[in-house]
Amino acid sequence: MTCPIDQAAVIGGGVIGGGWVARFLLSGVNVALHDPNSDARRTVEAMLDNARRAHQRLVDTPPVTEGVLTFHDSVEEAVAGASYIQENVPERLEIKHDVIAKIEAGAAADALIGSSTSGFKPSELQAKMQHPERLVVAHPFNPVYLVPLVEVVGSDVNTAATTERVSQILAGLSMHPLVVRREIEAHIADRLLEAVWREGLWLIHDDIATTQEIDDAIRYGFGLRWAQMGLFETYRIAGGEAGMKHFIEQFGPALAWPWTKLMDVPEMTDELAQKIADQSDAQSGQYSIRELERIRDDNLVGILQALKSRRWGAGETLARWEEEHCPSQGNPSDDIDPAQPLALYQTRVKDDWIDYNGHMTEHRYLQVFGDSTDAFLAYIGMDKAYLESGHSVYTVESHLRHTAEVGVGAVIFVTTRVLGCDAKRVRILHEMTDEDGQVLATAEHMLLHVNTNTSRACPFLPQLAERLAALAPGQSNLEAPAYAGAGIRMIGWANKEVV
Amino acid sequence: MTCPIDQAAVIGGGVIGGGWVARFLLSGVNVALHDPNSDARRTVEAMLDNARRAHQRLVDTPPVTEGVLTFHDSVEEAVAGASYIQENVPERLEIKHDVIAKIEAGAAADALIGSSTSGFKPSELQAKMQHPERLVVAHPFNPVYLVPLVEVVGSDVNTAATTERVSQILAGLSMHPLVVRREIEAHIADRLLEAVWREGLWLIHDDIATTQEIDDAIRYGFGLRWAQMGLFETYRIAGGEAGMKHFIEQFGPALAWPWTKLMDVPEMTDELAQKIADQSDAQSGQYSIRELERIRDDNLVGILQALKSRRWGAGETLARWEEEHCPSQGNPSDDIDPAQPLALYQTRVKDDWIDYNGHMTEHRYLQVFGDSTDAFLAYIGMDKAYLESGHSVYTVESHLRHTAEVGVGAVIFVTTRVLGCDAKRVRILHEMTDEDGQVLATAEHMLLHVNTNTSRACPFLPQLAERLAALAPGQSNLEAPAYAGAGIRMIGWANKEVV
Repeated sequence: MTCPIDQAAVIGGGVIGGGWVARFLLSGVNVALHDPNSDARRTVEAMLDNARRAHQRLVDTPPVTEGVLTFHDSVEEAVAGASYIQENVPERLEIKHDVIAKIEAGAAADALIGSSTSGFKPSELQAKMQHPERLVVAHPFNPVYLVPLVEVVGSDVNTAATTERVSQILAGLSMHPLVVRREIEAHIADRLLEAVWREGLWLIHDDIATTQEIDDAIRYGFGLRWAQMGLFETYRIAGGEAGMKHFIEQFGPALAWPWTKLMDVPEMTDELAQKIADQSDAQSGQYSIRELERIRDDNLVGILQALKSRRWGAGETLARWEEEHCPSQGNPSDDIDPAQPLALYQTRVKDDWIDYNGHMTEHRYLQVFGDSTDAFLAYIGMDKAYLESGHSVYTVESHLRHTAEVGVGAVIFVTTRVLGCDAKRVRILHEMTDEDGQVLATAEHMLLHVNTNTSRACPFLPQLAERLAALAPGQSNLEAPAYAGAGIRMIGWANKEVV
Repeated sequence: MTCPIDQAAVIGGGVIGGGWVARFLLSGVNVALHDPNSDARRTVEAMLDNARRAHQRLVDTPPVTEGVLTFHDSVEEAVAGASYIQENVPERLEIKHDVIAKIEAGAAADALIGSSTSGFKPSELQAKMQHPERLVVAHPFNPVYLVPLVEVVGSDVNTAATTERVSQILAGLSMHPLVVRREIEAHIADRLLEAVWREGLWLIHDDIATTQEIDDAIRYGFGLRWAQMGLFETYRIAGGEAGMKHFIEQFGPALAWPWTKLMDVPEMTDELAQKIADQSDAQSGQYSIRELERIRDDNLVGILQALKSRRWGAGETLARWEEEHCPSQGNPSDDIDPAQPLALYQTRVKDDWIDYNGHMTEHRYLQVFGDSTDAFLAYIGMDKAYLESGHSVYTVESHLRHTAEVGVGAVIFVTTRVLGCDAKRVRILHEMTDEDGQVLATAEHMLLHVNTNTSRACPFLPQLAERLAALAPGQSNLEAPAYAGAGIRMIGWANKEVV
């Protein structure tokens, strides 16, 4: 979903506010930021660097034009032109009330307000508002520019239309809005986190486990499950065909076991705080926070991409956003000139496409050319129904030439020429260029039309044959480059004495 | 680490026991299974099918020869020849004691015993044993054949040598043994899980959230973080440069907030159990348990592979195991005949290498050929130091021919011939075959030696030049196939009337 607003305001530019700034900008929404801290500009820009780096690795579609970030000296000035305002000031009710009053004073009458509060109920934040119906909780998770969850919580004064509108805005940032049906302190996710936090503190307090051991118990175990299914879906599987009720009846008794620590709260003495800090240093002190951020972000990117290829959970959110931001990919428009090289495909060089020489690795060129071939086949009419009829086109031969290097983040373009065809075959030539038109690589392919049930060559069906014939007048007038049809230059062992 | 034992016994073949069976077998360890349930053979074999499927997608190295599974009518018979015995009977202490007594009666004196118990302390299980020092808790996580965590817990009677030996055996199954320093009911991970479970039950009980909403709050949010870092490392980052102690002092007060539900346990009435079951049906009822298992497994495979490419957490465990199971990859042995095509590379076709036609997708052929080129370059002496000296070899031209199809799971072999070389270039020809020797594809490459600082061609350094020269006598005697040096056959538009 494309974000339905052009201009947002963000009040407070710390870890959470800065993450919101990045999320808005990278979705093409302008942001007006107010933060009284003189250091805010520096910290927000550092976070934006991280976010850009992660986004570039994460997103497969061509880059969205980034929104414009402006800095403002007052809340009222920042919110003046915004359709949506995100509040991220410290978790103290009097500070929240004060800032929300300023937001109300400066904002347009129809602007909506989301609060990042992790603990307060929306009714508590609304208590002193003139128009409390315009504020909901929109609680995100760190790093805000990568983690899709945002809890949207209204109180009795909010209408469903308001939570729906806020959800639409947030979905436009490639987030997953979870509308919480009843307000409650700490919403849903933080209640679960708080439960684990307490239990973790007891384990450390009682010398059962260190921070490292608790983290390992999570990330080598149930954390892997929870990145894709939650508590209940996971247990549903464990319950097997007997069903969830059976599982709960089996597991229920665990609740009566004497795991009494949960019933109490450890006192956070200075000794306990120091013990945790020391264990954390031993666990992670070899990395700077900046390094840990990048490790975390790269791992999140990898996990999100793995889930995207399976269209599951957070990966499905990402896949949907990409599709909505690139409607023309694989669906070429009619304004392509059939008498010129066909501009059917473009993409961006991903982080994991880079080899040990620092350039796009060999087989990724062929991946891009293969995707370009698919775009060409779609262009000449090979669709899902054609494939389902038991016909497809296979590449039988390829000739690749590398002419220049390309690095991560580069936008690359492929044009495709048809060099010739007969009843069963089509010979095409792709040319890959960068934004400056420099040729990076070329690929000549012989494609063969096959019956996929028999795996034997067969003539193109009319649907494709007619489109190919229609391309002939324009494409056959293009002069073929000298390297088309050429083989790899023979060198023998003649000059082996040189070696 | 290769598993140091050849023969294990598994007692109890349910969800957990069956998972252990698969984990042992796929690591090359024979398993003797006892389960009194007449259905055990069927369920274990069904689980083994799932595990084989997942393993094939997960592991990059050539397959390990699977262990042999035998079924036995008694505990004593199953454990007789085993070096390690894994107990997985129901969580009732009298049943555990009874089965452990039979294990002691039948097992070799030096066999070690691990219990899958999720709740009991090792001392409770050891209470009636003759040799309690041989039993520890080895608590795994579902699905046992994919999730690496296993908690290894001893009591006062166990020596460090015993927990170390059990950890070695489990690490040999590509698991991550977490030695728990003090026994406690439910060990570490299940205490954390229990905390979340209780809080989740309250949220459902109080109609704050459904099972779906709780699961979404996890999997779109902190679950993504926990697949790679746990609670404390994640919060360390959130604390920023101010450090962990500062973060805790800030966050500490949350513990005093009135989130009192944690202090009590909801009664598991039939109404609550039914409510959960109904919500779970609404959430996941469109999938069979078998479908959910496969979705879960595929997602886990994707997440583990994403982490593997970053060598982090559970991915690091997998990477290490693969390296130890394939020491020769990229490190060719000296028994290669330089007068024959060089057999330097083999791999297996991965699940995500398959295209919409059901065959290995185009660019994955070039990935395999590229890896084969790397193996060849390593063979002629291009090592890390050579690369670090500012020299490398780039592919400038490639000619691929596809001659047969190949599907997921196939083991494929690549041989490499040197067609010629001069001072700066080497021309090679790869041939890819399947296990029956059928040629699947060929790739001819022109490789160019470059100075990576200037990105300009330059002569091979002596280290490589001498190895290439030494290959000349043998390789130059091999007859080049007719397609070497040939271009893609020209077809023009001559017969466009056929179209």
